[in-house]
Amino acid sequence: MRIGVIGYGYWGPNIVRNFHTLDNTEVILVADRNPNCEMRLKKTFPSIGFTTNENDVLTSPNIDVVAVVTPVWTHHELAKKALENGKHVFVEKPFTYSVAQAEELIELADRKNLKIMVDHTFLFTGAVRKIKDLVDKRELGDLYYYDALRVNLGLFQHDVNVIWDLAPHDLSIMDYVIADKPEAVVATGEKHLNGVEDVAFITVYFPKRVIAHVNVNWLSPVKVRTTLIGGEKKMLVWNDLEVDEKIRIYDKGVSMSTNPANLHQLLVSYRSGDMWAPQVEQVEALRAETSYFVKCIEENKNPFNDGAAGLRVVRILEAANRSIRSRGEAVTL
Amino acid sequence: MRIGVIGYGYWGPNIVRNFHTLDNTEVILVADRNPNCEMRLKKTFPSIGFTTNENDVLTSPNIDVVAVVTPVWTHHELAKKALENGKHVFVEKPFTYSVAQAEELIELADRKNLKIMVDHTFLFTGAVRKIKDLVDKRELGDLYYYDALRVNLGLFQHDVNVIWDLAPHDLSIMDYVIADKPEAVVATGEKHLNGVEDVAFITVYFPKRVIAHVNVNWLSPVKVRTTLIGGEKKMLVWNDLEVDEKIRIYDKGVSMSTNPANLHQLLVSYRSGDMWAPQVEQVEALRAETSYFVKCIEENKNPFNDGAAGLRVVRILEAANRSIRSRGEAVTL
Amino acid sequence: MRIGVIGYGYWGPNIVRNFHTLDNTEVILVADRNPNCEMRLKKTFPSIGFTTNENDVLTSPNIDVVAVVTPVWTHHELAKKALENGKHVFVEKPFTYSVAQAEELIELADRKNLKIMVDHTFLFTGAVRKIKDLVDKRELGDLYYYDALRVNLGLFQHDVNVIWDLAPHDLSIMDYVIADKPEAVVATGEKHLNGVEDVAFITVYFPKRVIAHVNVNWLSPVKVRTTLIGGEKKMLVWNDLEVDEKIRIYDKGVSMSTNPANLHQLLVSYRSGDMWAPQVEQVEALRAETSYFVKCIEENKNPFNDGAAGLRVVRILEAANRSIRSRGEAVTL
Amino acid sequence: MRIGVIGYGYWGPNIVRNFHTLDNTEVILVADRNPNCEMRLKKTFPSIGFTTNENDVLTSPNIDVVAVVTPVWTHHELAKKALENGKHVFVEKPFTYSVAQAEELIELADRKNLKIMVDHTFLFTGAVRKIKDLVDKRELGDLYYYDALRVNLGLFQHDVNVIWDLAPHDLSIMDYVIADKPEAVVATGEKHLNGVEDVAFITVYFPKRVIAHVNVNWLSPVKVRTTLIGGEKKMLVWNDLEVDEKIRIYDKGVSMSTNPANLHQLLVSYRSGDMWAPQVEQVEALRAETSYFVKCIEENKNPFNDGAAGLRVVRILEAANRSIRSRGEAVTL
Repeated sequence: MRIGVIGYGYWGPNIVRNFHTLDNTEVILVADRNPNCEMRLKKTFPSIGFTTNENDVLTSPNIDVVAVVTPVWTHHELAKKALENGKHVFVEKPFTYSVAQAEELIELADRKNLKIMVDHTFLFTGAVRKIKDLVDKRELGDLYYYDALRVNLGLFQHDVNVIWDLAPHDLSIMDYVIADKPEAVVATGEKHLNGVEDVAFITVYFPKRVIAHVNVNWLSPVKVRTTLIGGEKKMLVWNDLEVDEKIRIYDKGVSMSTNPANLHQLLVSYRSGDMWAPQVEQVEALRAETSYFVKCIEENKNPFNDGAAGLRVVRILEAANRSIRSRGEAVTL
Repeated sequence: MRIGVIGYGYWGPNIVRNFHTLDNTEVILVADRNPNCEMRLKKTFPSIGFTTNENDVLTSPNIDVVAVVTPVWTHHELAKKALENGKHVFVEKPFTYSVAQAEELIELADRKNLKIMVDHTFLFTGAVRKIKDLVDKRELGDLYYYDALRVNLGLFQHDVNVIWDLAPHDLSIMDYVIADKPEAVVATGEKHLNGVEDVAFITVYFPKRVIAHVNVNWLSPVKVRTTLIGGEKKMLVWNDLEVDEKIRIYDKGVSMSTNPANLHQLLVSYRSGDMWAPQVEQVEALRAETSYFVKCIEENKNPFNDGAAGLRVVRILEAANRSIRSRGEAVTL
Repeated sequence: MRIGVIGYGYWGPNIVRNFHTLDNTEVILVADRNPNCEMRLKKTFPSIGFTTNENDVLTSPNIDVVAVVTPVWTHHELAKKALENGKHVFVEKPFTYSVAQAEELIELADRKNLKIMVDHTFLFTGAVRKIKDLVDKRELGDLYYYDALRVNLGLFQHDVNVIWDLAPHDLSIMDYVIADKPEAVVATGEKHLNGVEDVAFITVYFPKRVIAHVNVNWLSPVKVRTTLIGGEKKMLVWNDLEVDEKIRIYDKGVSMSTNPANLHQLLVSYRSGDMWAPQVEQVEALRAETSYFVKCIEENKNPFNDGAAGLRVVRILEAANRSIRSRGEAVTL
Repeated sequence: MRIGVIGYGYWGPNIVRNFHTLDNTEVILVADRNPNCEMRLKKTFPSIGFTTNENDVLTSPNIDVVAVVTPVWTHHELAKKALENGKHVFVEKPFTYSVAQAEELIELADRKNLKIMVDHTFLFTGAVRKIKDLVDKRELGDLYYYDALRVNLGLFQHDVNVIWDLAPHDLSIMDYVIADKPEAVVATGEKHLNGVEDVAFITVYFPKRVIAHVNVNWLSPVKVRTTLIGGEKKMLVWNDLEVDEKIRIYDKGVSMSTNPANLHQLLVSYRSGDMWAPQVEQVEALRAETSYFVKCIEENKNPFNDGAAGLRVVRILEAANRSIRSRGEAVTL
């Protein structure tokens, strides 16, 4: 399978390295409008071709898969051309800049029987796979809430706000773990420096009283990557900055019952047991993801992080942008 | 100065001990409807009187100050009677159950030249005093955001939700530190167990792009008490669970400028310097607070945590309750 | 059972409170040469008698048990008199100032059929009980090492060095957990301020290649209370300053085998599995200990932390003092 | 300057990369007896020559500097030949397997006016440079102790014990920071698995009551890299596993005085002030080190981490091995 990659900035080299070193795949051409990228590419991969014209990738008859690793506002146009030229596409997150764009790409891929994968890399980490597994096995029982904190100093983007920059990680994981259709989004936040929000708080309402919250911030002096997931039976803390024990599961809970002697009185009881940090598989997530995409194409199967998954995230991002402009008005999905 | 205390549950004994052991003050009567409290009181303070009828405290001619340490829905009635009987009042937080109640008490105290203090104990801790001092000296520069996380397992209240239980701490500190008039409140949250919200997120909009956020949760497996305060010049992390270094100040920041060569391009520069954990005064906050109240009465001065301060917190709580019911509609203050 | 307590300094009040509030016991007399102690005692326990003459306690016909809570160099004389007067004794750690003193007391108690308990409080904490239980059940497999770090700023003692002040905790726990007869002691350290060692390192050699190490320091800017226990099958970290997860058990290990292809080559394999923090019982250790002593007396049984246990710790302390003076010469036990 | 590198195992590639990418230097030949290394080398550096015969490097007339990155027992022979052939040598730590070997190499280099650098990489980290700077500026005052903890699971060496594997880091830093001549070494430890010590404790006595201690362990379930340095005026904690605040300086101390009223009584006073984490320079230590070696050769200056520095570490290692065999007998240096 021959891959072409468009965009060789911060993330592009990782995409190239992974697609290039899988068995049975090969990156044959990389495009970036910045000609300086050529030297960086050649130093590591002298055999891969380079061009400053992305159309060379999009139209090459030798390319089966195009990876789009460019700013979000270019995704739709590039992915569309790639699909029109009969190529499978791997698109950086967030998938597109609007719901309409995402829907158009999905429809087009469908019609041409091509695959789309959206690069929600975190879904392929050992930590998220373990969390998904625990939730699916109902170790936590019914879910109560999903609360993510993703803050650090920078990196400021000029074209998108902190929600579009940082929240796609959490929203894609939340979508994967909760696996239900969100009902409404509320977002608040503020702009301090360059005309886009640099601090933001997003609430997502799900059915059955499940609530999710994402706190993203480009102006935090400390880096935090912590998610709390509360369930009826157990609770989980995922600290992605821990080297060894990223996930901790607490055998803790609260239960309520009615006092038999006084039906107006609720009795609350707390349960507090062991904590357990399961071994988490150490894999390079991007390697697992690219390898999975190749397999999906070969076997003509839809990846679980397909265009529809990318669309679900974009739908929340779009709603969050709408909500934040009206200071938190709930946007129904 | 002779003190009467109404309510001898969880917090009452601390109020009694502090008021009783100050110089020149004495607790002479404690009221609680639960007769079992008498034994607990007598064991520690055999000389203090006990009654199950709060009116004995409210009407006693020997009492100068009444401390109201009861559930919030009783504050207004008890404080009102105390003021009507010519007594200064010390009221547990939150001050009242509604803005209207708070306003009535303030007006009444004013008319009778009596003092009200609302027990926002945290304002008297070494940590909050240090933060207030740093912000007032403009060490952080203009403030950007105030982001508080206060989560733990329980303690469930039956009559109020997690906002009224946990957020008054953060809202009173935020009010003290930011010292500006909030514009609007957005709250989201969910009820899982006993019909009141047990998970909630509150955003408070202030003038000049200052934004505050409070995350409160009764269903967290871990206890967290962390507040981030971001400013133009420096940033601060307050972790109240640290024994020794509760406050850390980061000499970090971001600045933006326009590229002289390309006026459409913003240049972002990050600054990262030392971290500094100032020694924080080790005091019993409640001792400092009660002692300050006595001094205010003696010198006929208004405490800074007076009825008006209590009202400011209640106004946000009331707005938060309104907003949460409509899934995040902004309530203008 | 009627208790007399000698010494009402830092630890004495805890001993009095616990012995006084157990069922079926009562502290009837407290002695301290400092007359100011009387007021402190009476404030909390008005019914307990006070004297500045310890002989009043030692000779009172109404006293069954004497608790000796005084500096170590007085333990032998006071405990001896108490035993001679037919009283059971509860002695602060370390048991005595020398092996000879300890042996004399043990022999005397034995002859008069009286009980001695040495106050190794830590043995009654939930954490140490859990560790003992895990080791006894061979969860860790054969032990490899026991490595304790107990450092903080102060508290300086004038009469004993940091080994006699801090290490008895670790040595008594080590003795309890390893449950084997140590072979030799090596100690190093240095005096910086007041003529006694304030920094010291103790190695204790046990049979079967088990090695223990204790690092004690009065001059550390940070307080650390961490013990590592390595075993053939699992390894354990006990951090006593953690509030909730004091003990963590790591399913990690190393195994060696000979390469079948090359008998001179060792193959090393590492195993790394889950981490597990068992719920640790929340008890007041001193309450459990005093209650257990009363039970031992009633049932005429020897406590496990008896004079012999105290002697085993004193033997190591004495050897450590000897070794440290010769800069680490091993002292065989 | 043309460099030859002998040894392309774990560390060799880092040496090659750094020497190869400096200005004015070039690695021209790499030797390793394992022929599989060639492919690894060529993949990254296709232009560098490879040989399985180290003599090709040692005798090449085109090579000015030989880097010896092989097991310690080969250092002396390889470095000696390199010096005899007129080459400067960069030697992996520990410098040699014995004091005699180190002395011979130093004498030889001296006679031929060649430079030796021992790869004590840590001395070039931002953290150690900051510590050295603080100590030299007497920010800590007179030093009291240096206490290093370096434990983890593995990596087991077959030919040397844990002291020779892990302690050279700490001993070289200690030598650099304390900058005094040690008087005696005491070492204890135990062998559990493959016939060499896997747990060891080393005490080094210095003049003026300065004491150093190094705790190294291959059998720890957790990785720790923490050093405490106590001084008369301030104290320092260096945690090398922290990403951002590796060094914390505590304005804490103890002072003693004689009670004027009672000359037999010492008064102890504790001082506790701010904590401060200075910004630590983010550099690749090995880059700074290799670049410094090139500069030393060009300017004909001795590096501070020269053969003599390497010898000082080997002298302690040799003494530690002697002491550990006699269970802690002090070895005078």
